[in-house]
Amino acid sequence: VGRDPREEAPTLAWGIDLGGTDCKVGIVDSSGRVRAQTGFPTPREPAAAVAAIERACRRLAAEAGVRIDRAGMGAPGPLDLDRGVVIQAPNLGWRGVPLRDMVAAALGCPVVLDNDANAAAYGEAWVGAGRDATVLLLATLGTGVGGGVVAGGRVFHGARGLAVELGHQVIVPEGRLCSCGKRGCLEAYFSGHALDEQALETIGTRDGRPTHKELFERYAAGDPLVAPWMEQALDILARGVAAAGVLFDPDRIVFTGGLTRSWDVFGAGLVDAIVRRMGPAGPQAQGIVLTELGGDAGIIGTAGLALLDGGSRPRESS
Amino acid sequence: VGRDPREEAPTLAWGIDLGGTDCKVGIVDSSGRVRAQTGFPTPREPAAAVAAIERACRRLAAEAGVRIDRAGMGAPGPLDLDRGVVIQAPNLGWRGVPLRDMVAAALGCPVVLDNDANAAAYGEAWVGAGRDATVLLLATLGTGVGGGVVAGGRVFHGARGLAVELGHQVIVPEGRLCSCGKRGCLEAYFSGHALDEQALETIGTRDGRPTHKELFERYAAGDPLVAPWMEQALDILARGVAAAGVLFDPDRIVFTGGLTRSWDVFGAGLVDAIVRRMGPAGPQAQGIVLTELGGDAGIIGTAGLALLDGGSRPRESS
Repeated sequence: VGRDPREEAPTLAWGIDLGGTDCKVGIVDSSGRVRAQTGFPTPREPAAAVAAIERACRRLAAEAGVRIDRAGMGAPGPLDLDRGVVIQAPNLGWRGVPLRDMVAAALGCPVVLDNDANAAAYGEAWVGAGRDATVLLLATLGTGVGGGVVAGGRVFHGARGLAVELGHQVIVPEGRLCSCGKRGCLEAYFSGHALDEQALETIGTRDGRPTHKELFERYAAGDPLVAPWMEQALDILARGVAAAGVLFDPDRIVFTGGLTRSWDVFGAGLVDAIVRRMGPAGPQAQGIVLTELGGDAGIIGTAGLALLDGGSRPRESS
Repeated sequence: VGRDPREEAPTLAWGIDLGGTDCKVGIVDSSGRVRAQTGFPTPREPAAAVAAIERACRRLAAEAGVRIDRAGMGAPGPLDLDRGVVIQAPNLGWRGVPLRDMVAAALGCPVVLDNDANAAAYGEAWVGAGRDATVLLLATLGTGVGGGVVAGGRVFHGARGLAVELGHQVIVPEGRLCSCGKRGCLEAYFSGHALDEQALETIGTRDGRPTHKELFERYAAGDPLVAPWMEQALDILARGVAAAGVLFDPDRIVFTGGLTRSWDVFGAGLVDAIVRRMGPAGPQAQGIVLTELGGDAGIIGTAGLALLDGGSRPRESS
């Protein structure tokens, strides 16, 4: 007697990683392998973004000759996970966009929506740099600084889905103004945005646009204009990550995001500072590592959330 | 046809709250009500402590005329939760004590062992000040400062059972030496121990022993000798709790411990400072409250862990 094939676990899912600048879409199998992927600049209008996502998903599936019945999606937050709504995405200018249901309607299948950092953390915990960890803490060092925790195979969402806002710990009371309105957040010191601001104040521009890459190069060369505040910024980053280590007691801390391209300049010192401030909780130095999935963590993690049961609360829609 | 009564859920458990000074033992039912309780000074020797616990448990059960087949137990940490061992309990001078199995052998029943702050957090989440919360953060302000998180009905243990060390976040880099060996921990500024040290340095002793109660009274009266460092210590406490709020996104923060007897002096200012530093994550002011279970949180929480499935990893022994 044959089994009804519909009762078997699905083995493929779309993974959709919607960023403030670019959107990536992939087909991921249940072993975490990316079968196919594509990308495009994120359209500014929600309806246009959803249409572009639908076209990309359908094209990938047609080219692969497969039928897919579920999707995972990551988006910049804050999100309302229960309702599947982007509360606010400053880089896109979105407010109150019911993204999960829009994409589910377009694709005709259930969609799991999560915060982009949580999705990437889930990917790394599933098949990346944290696949053998019990508790993984991901730190994303990009334009902003995000965080995600996966414990025992589940994303830690907090009460309202706002966990883990690594970059918005106040490290310097009454310090620099942060984009969130508070003063002295980690993100106001060490992030792509903060480093660009510091570069303008300190070394001016080159070809009209300073880059954090040049800053890290100057820091590596011992430039006295750059070293003091870079050391301060790195110390603030270390303190924020160490606090998360003391509180969550992860056995793996994974760094990802554009700024990690300069990891060889600041990584070793950062790891030392984190370990010193954590004490017995958290991992030792060998447990603090770079991403293994890189830019694919988002599509792998979101697909994983759709294929496995990685959520801690109802977040599906069809 | 009758059901085998052994298949029914147990309705009573012993709750054992082993502290560095006193030990409390109670019988708690499955609605979280304390049916009977007793207490005694904690014997310094592990074997003597276990014998005293056994006597207290058996006497309570005999007086109540009930048979009890499971126990929960809280102990100061750090603990090895998988093996049920007290790795180190400085106040008791214990090291490597296999407490869970010793108590299980004495009582002849399975014992669940957890960190004392986690157990109290579980009690508050079950039937106390966090019973309607999705994610509860408990802060214990006693001789030291501890923390516990209960999310979705389960204690958050971290990878090695060291979560949530609220008091050992480094808030002041290169600051005061903490008992843990690091510098600048929250606990080195705002804790019974730190306040006693500060009192000795600042106002000397009264009858040979300054108390934090007198310090809070002087602070309330505007004593210029006390106000500046008390304000600094409260600010450091607020920053540490706010960081935990940003990271765990709790919808309830509960304060307990001996120092909260002076809550009317410092509570309102503390809550304001926490809310200001948390921003959108975490609860607003009305979600930051005092314990409802007080000194009973430990026996209720440990019994709850034995009666319900509140753990996130195997921690039983029989």
